[in-house]
Amino acid sequence: MLDYKLLEALASVVEEGGFERAAQALHITQSAVSQRIKLLENQTGQVLLVRSYPPRATEPGVRLLKHYRQVASLEADLEDALLPRGPGVYRSLKVGLNADSLTTWFPGAVQSFLLSRDILLDLCTDDQDVTHRLLQDGEVMGCITSRERSLQGCRVQALGSMRYRMLASPAYMERWLPSGPEGLGDLQAPVLIFNRKDRLQDYFFTSVTGHTIRHPVHYIPSASSFLQFILLGLGCGMVPDLQSDRYLGSGALVEVVPNRPMDVPLYWHCWDIGSALLRDFTEVLVLEAGKRLPCIVGQ
Amino acid sequence: MLDYKLLEALASVVEEGGFERAAQALHITQSAVSQRIKLLENQTGQVLLVRSYPPRATEPGVRLLKHYRQVASLEADLEDALLPRGPGVYRSLKVGLNADSLTTWFPGAVQSFLLSRDILLDLCTDDQDVTHRLLQDGEVMGCITSRERSLQGCRVQALGSMRYRMLASPAYMERWLPSGPEGLGDLQAPVLIFNRKDRLQDYFFTSVTGHTIRHPVHYIPSASSFLQFILLGLGCGMVPDLQSDRYLGSGALVEVVPNRPMDVPLYWHCWDIGSALLRDFTEVLVLEAGKRLPCIVGQ
Repeated sequence: MLDYKLLEALASVVEEGGFERAAQALHITQSAVSQRIKLLENQTGQVLLVRSYPPRATEPGVRLLKHYRQVASLEADLEDALLPRGPGVYRSLKVGLNADSLTTWFPGAVQSFLLSRDILLDLCTDDQDVTHRLLQDGEVMGCITSRERSLQGCRVQALGSMRYRMLASPAYMERWLPSGPEGLGDLQAPVLIFNRKDRLQDYFFTSVTGHTIRHPVHYIPSASSFLQFILLGLGCGMVPDLQSDRYLGSGALVEVVPNRPMDVPLYWHCWDIGSALLRDFTEVLVLEAGKRLPCIVGQ
Repeated sequence: MLDYKLLEALASVVEEGGFERAAQALHITQSAVSQRIKLLENQTGQVLLVRSYPPRATEPGVRLLKHYRQVASLEADLEDALLPRGPGVYRSLKVGLNADSLTTWFPGAVQSFLLSRDILLDLCTDDQDVTHRLLQDGEVMGCITSRERSLQGCRVQALGSMRYRMLASPAYMERWLPSGPEGLGDLQAPVLIFNRKDRLQDYFFTSVTGHTIRHPVHYIPSASSFLQFILLGLGCGMVPDLQSDRYLGSGALVEVVPNRPMDVPLYWHCWDIGSALLRDFTEVLVLEAGKRLPCIVGQ
């Protein structure tokens, strides 16, 4: 059998982003951390860690870490079954998700689960290519993305759709689109885009006008600031209904093209390793997302 | 002189994150983009681009790009002076900043400047080590961080302080700290942390209790979701007054330790290249930040 103390040291250096922090987390000295990793490298005959800043796992290191995290997760399940956890003993769940889910429906959906179960979340938001890679490498246990196809060794479940609309302030509409959406094809005003991976605005314009349009662009990589920029009249952009409802109701924001929503389906992908924690979290997530998100069209 | 058309192709591939998108942005074919970069590599005798996904500049590539962006910025100033821009001709300003500034005071501070000057923002949020490196490499023209010392070739100006408080919901206080802040040293409840670079919570606990404390931690990398998690009773965490004022007023949130704010100073760093656009943006930023942020103590 592998010596899991050594793998724990490797995992800690990668997760905490350094030897010093790993030593603190494990309550051992920094040189003990180094020795454990060197020993593991000798035993496996592979370089497992690039000593960069922050340190990162090599390809064989990634494979070992994925295995380690899955074993750790199953072991924690076993402990739960054999010996109920006392208060103040937490388990951590590392999840990747899109920024719009994190800003809107996700906190409410997981609230009671977190309050009743002593679970800690370790969240990372990135585009779906990145979170799928993290899932594949075993760095996150699950992720929420719009990709339907499951990854090898993972399960996938539909959560529902997020409905987006292209929104602007009345001042923006008056200045830039006084004659309404016909002006869209020749719009000289800024459009907001989250970051260079965000194609939602392009999809919308293409679906409305039938061709690709080049607009001036503000890149605003924060979901709440994105909304603020629209409210301030600085651009138009695609906003989830979950975030905009009260502004549409009050007239502070209007749809650039009336009644033209776009639905983005969301799926939950997670390891298929029979972990009780993952099974319970999946159940809660699917149930609570179902209360907050419309069904995916066609399902 | 350098052939700046070739540098433009290099910059575009790096900024757009690929050859195809660069070709679209420059209105040329993908093979023309490739040829320009190969030609530039032949002329300089250096490999300038790592053909990874996404492509990134090598060290000599980074140096060339920094020079290119500074020349492009000065050239745009010159154009402004010689030939006033018509409507719909925009200039782009790439800026790094901390997530809390982007979510609170920044949009309002730049609103009129953006509306009156046809400026597009290209924002990136990351920790200050990263944004300072981006500034040094010439990838952003300026950044907002809490570091006071200026970088080589850059100017620095104080903007003001963001005032933070450790906040929790009344339900959280009742469950976890029923006898008030004395219980902090032995707190078994989750604390929220933005990401692993965020030490603000640690600083606060150390300043209050006199020693380092290990708490259970949720990592929530979104400023607005961070606040939502606190409102839902899922943890306590440091929140800027600019974001929390109305919740403190209504009693939805309370200070974990009464009247114990922590001030984080903010500075604007930018290239020192005599660009009129940067000079004007700096002036607006310093003025508008001054209206929204308290002065830095000691200045």
